[in-house]
Amino acid sequence: MDKLDPWGTSSIKDYSRLQTEFGIEPVAPLVSRFKKPSPHVRRGIDFGQRDLVRILDAVDHNKPYAVMSGIKPDGAFHLGNKMTADDIIYFQSLSKKAMVYYAIADVEAYADNGLSFAETSKTAVRNVADILALGLDPDHALVYKQSEEMRVMRMATVFSKGVTNNMLKAIYGERQIGLYLSALVQAGDILMPQLPELGGPKPVLVPVGADQDPHIRLSRDLAAKYDSEFGFFPPSAIYHRLELALTGGYKMSKRLPESGFTLDDSPTEAAKRVRSAFTGGRDTVEEQRRLGGRPQICPVYDLYPFHFAKDDEHVEKVYHECTKGIRLCGECKLEAVGLVKEFLEEHHRRRESLMKDAGELLTKSRNYLLATGK
Amino acid sequence: MDKLDPWGTSSIKDYSRLQTEFGIEPVAPLVSRFKKPSPHVRRGIDFGQRDLVRILDAVDHNKPYAVMSGIKPDGAFHLGNKMTADDIIYFQSLSKKAMVYYAIADVEAYADNGLSFAETSKTAVRNVADILALGLDPDHALVYKQSEEMRVMRMATVFSKGVTNNMLKAIYGERQIGLYLSALVQAGDILMPQLPELGGPKPVLVPVGADQDPHIRLSRDLAAKYDSEFGFFPPSAIYHRLELALTGGYKMSKRLPESGFTLDDSPTEAAKRVRSAFTGGRDTVEEQRRLGGRPQICPVYDLYPFHFAKDDEHVEKVYHECTKGIRLCGECKLEAVGLVKEFLEEHHRRRESLMKDAGELLTKSRNYLLATGK
Repeated sequence: MDKLDPWGTSSIKDYSRLQTEFGIEPVAPLVSRFKKPSPHVRRGIDFGQRDLVRILDAVDHNKPYAVMSGIKPDGAFHLGNKMTADDIIYFQSLSKKAMVYYAIADVEAYADNGLSFAETSKTAVRNVADILALGLDPDHALVYKQSEEMRVMRMATVFSKGVTNNMLKAIYGERQIGLYLSALVQAGDILMPQLPELGGPKPVLVPVGADQDPHIRLSRDLAAKYDSEFGFFPPSAIYHRLELALTGGYKMSKRLPESGFTLDDSPTEAAKRVRSAFTGGRDTVEEQRRLGGRPQICPVYDLYPFHFAKDDEHVEKVYHECTKGIRLCGECKLEAVGLVKEFLEEHHRRRESLMKDAGELLTKSRNYLLATGK
Repeated sequence: MDKLDPWGTSSIKDYSRLQTEFGIEPVAPLVSRFKKPSPHVRRGIDFGQRDLVRILDAVDHNKPYAVMSGIKPDGAFHLGNKMTADDIIYFQSLSKKAMVYYAIADVEAYADNGLSFAETSKTAVRNVADILALGLDPDHALVYKQSEEMRVMRMATVFSKGVTNNMLKAIYGERQIGLYLSALVQAGDILMPQLPELGGPKPVLVPVGADQDPHIRLSRDLAAKYDSEFGFFPPSAIYHRLELALTGGYKMSKRLPESGFTLDDSPTEAAKRVRSAFTGGRDTVEEQRRLGGRPQICPVYDLYPFHFAKDDEHVEKVYHECTKGIRLCGECKLEAVGLVKEFLEEHHRRRESLMKDAGELLTKSRNYLLATGK
């Protein structure tokens, strides 16, 4: 059995295995617990979870909880970042007692990509403007830079004494120390919202791609290990499916820019990528009319349920028309291009107007976290 | 062949092997380069070095250099800390262009010993008062807490991506990740004085016990690896011999309090330890008169050249009288006890008057380092 690989070389095709082999539970039985489930939840894009019920209970009982995620500021916000952002924003919106923690992984960007803090600082403002434009409520969010948050590094150091090489190998396989340290730093990010000066133990939801589960397991193991000292709740997670690459094949990746597009791309550029994308279409029109297309392998189809469909009926219509051979790939791409262009034009407009707010959110968060520091 | 082990399980008995096998050079040929060599240098207690000549050149040419060391604030200043402190203070005194960097390893104290930052903060003030009482010039010193110095943790992260597990194994043997991370953090401490905002590349001297050489080799390897980016000088080191344990056997250790005493111990308590110490004496007075004592295995003898002899003649006198059977262990202990008591009484007086200065040095350093931050 392959290990899940958060550093990008595994491929997860059979999501049901995640449940049987790793103990990720399905989201489906919990859908009725949501008053107004999000598109990702309704459409099964958020397919798996661990301890999601803790978050739903906190919502129901009006108790504090956190939603934690982050971004490596090494470039533009891509569709994967958007997918996570949509989840963050949705779970933030469920309660006034929610607090989002969003980590700007600038130390990683420096260590991995050689990007200076000056460069990543500019990128960070833009990335934060992106998530604000997608709907993040800045009044219930703290956005911090790894390079300025000593607590995370302190916790990573403490955790490094609490884990054994065997424990790390069991979760990640045999890796270089740099990757292990990154993992411990991420565990620090995930557990930070539960520190005493930040309100103490509380449920924390981490929305992630299924490939990131090893980080969740490590932070849950560490939460248990340091429970007597900190009283940590084991972090909860919600897992989203990974989007198919526009170039065909397994998944969109930052490392293959052609496999998707970013929220910095011009509508024209993004449209070009969609137009030349791989599809689940058949070899001939005749065949497609007869057999229907294959949305399950089609990245153009994915654009609808993951991001751009107007509503669930729209998703169903596209799926139905595709599988019945009513809709051909050309017209389907044309429709997707229209939706992508419309989204990007609106997003660019919104983001431009939010650049100042993004800078202010970073400053406000920094001051708050400094004041709670010790 | 055993590896040198900075975490405390090796025993180094044959110092000449360090030169042939690890490439540590002798100090002796450089003694004439010192205008006024320190007692440790004159007496061969500082027996080995790497690139010490860089420091001596900087002194001669009135160029900036740094002296870097640290302390884990998990208790009282012990004789090993004093030995390193004496070296720091001596090399600081050689030039007005010297700057001491002294790291308070409070994150390690927390991770290893569970000591809170509140506890170690108090200990740190006392430790700093100790080194001031020993003669540190606070106008040419920066004392920082690991928990507040983001640069060190950033560098550790960067270095973690630059080393391979094999490189770490070659230096330290197979270890747990926590120890590897400590090693990378120490490399961060050692290389920090060369960062651009702290005046850029310069010679840095690290005075250490011979058992700490792996850390020096790692930081020299990393300096070479990141030379093109930072222009690092490979750090220089001066190695001191390790003091014999009062309880007999290899070396004094914090883990065996009875093996030495601390600068917090009362003169009476310290005297008791010395009086009951193991010695290099013979089984009978008759035998000792005939064969002489064995200073080379005697921790009571070590107290003279390492710390408490009035001058070199005094050391020679003790050695001569011991080896010739003129001096017996009882009278030798009595003299040592007198010197220890005198030292501790004076030290306690001085330290008490310097507690406020210690707090001020910590605050001043913190403000300076914060202002240079980023």
